[in-house]
Amino acid sequence: MDNPKGRGMENRLDLQLRFIIEIDRLKHIMRRTRLFDNSRHENDAEHGWHLAMMAMALAEYSNKPVDVNKVVRMVLVHDIVEIDAGDTFLYDEAAGLLKEEAERKAAERIFGLLPDDQARELKSLWEEFEARDSAEARFAAAIDRLEPMMQNALTAGHAWKQHNVRRSQVVQKNRPIVEAGSRELWRFAESLIARAVEMGHLAD
Amino acid sequence: MDNPKGRGMENRLDLQLRFIIEIDRLKHIMRRTRLFDNSRHENDAEHGWHLAMMAMALAEYSNKPVDVNKVVRMVLVHDIVEIDAGDTFLYDEAAGLLKEEAERKAAERIFGLLPDDQARELKSLWEEFEARDSAEARFAAAIDRLEPMMQNALTAGHAWKQHNVRRSQVVQKNRPIVEAGSRELWRFAESLIARAVEMGHLAD
Repeated sequence: MDNPKGRGMENRLDLQLRFIIEIDRLKHIMRRTRLFDNSRHENDAEHGWHLAMMAMALAEYSNKPVDVNKVVRMVLVHDIVEIDAGDTFLYDEAAGLLKEEAERKAAERIFGLLPDDQARELKSLWEEFEARDSAEARFAAAIDRLEPMMQNALTAGHAWKQHNVRRSQVVQKNRPIVEAGSRELWRFAESLIARAVEMGHLAD
Repeated sequence: MDNPKGRGMENRLDLQLRFIIEIDRLKHIMRRTRLFDNSRHENDAEHGWHLAMMAMALAEYSNKPVDVNKVVRMVLVHDIVEIDAGDTFLYDEAAGLLKEEAERKAAERIFGLLPDDQARELKSLWEEFEARDSAEARFAAAIDRLEPMMQNALTAGHAWKQHNVRRSQVVQKNRPIVEAGSRELWRFAESLIARAVEMGHLAD
């Protein structure tokens, strides 16, 4: 494992294995939202798996036709930077401003563990997700916002309540992103939000 | 959510959402092996995510060229049946005999939550994985065996020791599967096993 990059097959496998071992740490990065049965918080690895399944099940609702496989790869990779940069709560404005630089460094370090060709490929997937300038990235971002809204809706607004989040914030933060990926899924999100307010799980 | 299948768009989304909610339970299905830092057991959703990343990083070692996207979708889906059928330890011969029927029923029920076209698609991916009669299925099976060997190797043989597994069983159970998918990765697995025996983490 002490060899420099790119000297033939054996080194290449060493680099790939080092990456595979490193990203196990994503299983320890905890999110603010909880599993649908409200038993505990979700971690980033589980979240990546669930988004990939959502991409496979819901791709037809994308505003524009998407390469589903690319959306799947994108959501699998999108939170790996949080191994170094940590999870930032969507409604924490101050932390949001600092995270960009931390995530960029994390992408360099973690994807950089791979052989150069693969490091470039995964970093570029992550950059595309962050930039949201392709149909795939916009749809990936939409489901990345939808899952936590479903988690809140199914756990009596657990994370919303705990962090004093109001309806107007949920709409302001999520509507532009979800709608840009899928008007259909935003309509569903709106019904979730309306019902959460009605049930007293989200402050109006 | 009480509508029968296939009556237009709204019902279709309801069915898809029901599936997405149901599969959250995979995050509660615990495996025998532990995370690389030995802090706790791994669950099936995390395992699915990690295998998908391994597929992306290691596909070049498949004996035959594979459609990586298909391997990724396959490993994401392959353990969903364990929501009903539970995780079966590889070295538990008695449980292994019973699991086939339980998993088949689980596939019918869980993939069957989806609209028919998607239910067929995901069930067929799972069946292909189980049958191991394509290059993609053989490679998916190889990495599904490699990850727990790496977990054992990195946790001083935790699950091997706990369940009194010996070197001959590890080789007998894994060699045919891993080698059928990737001779290269089996060579790596052999070195892991040899080192585990040397360190006293696996009984000879």
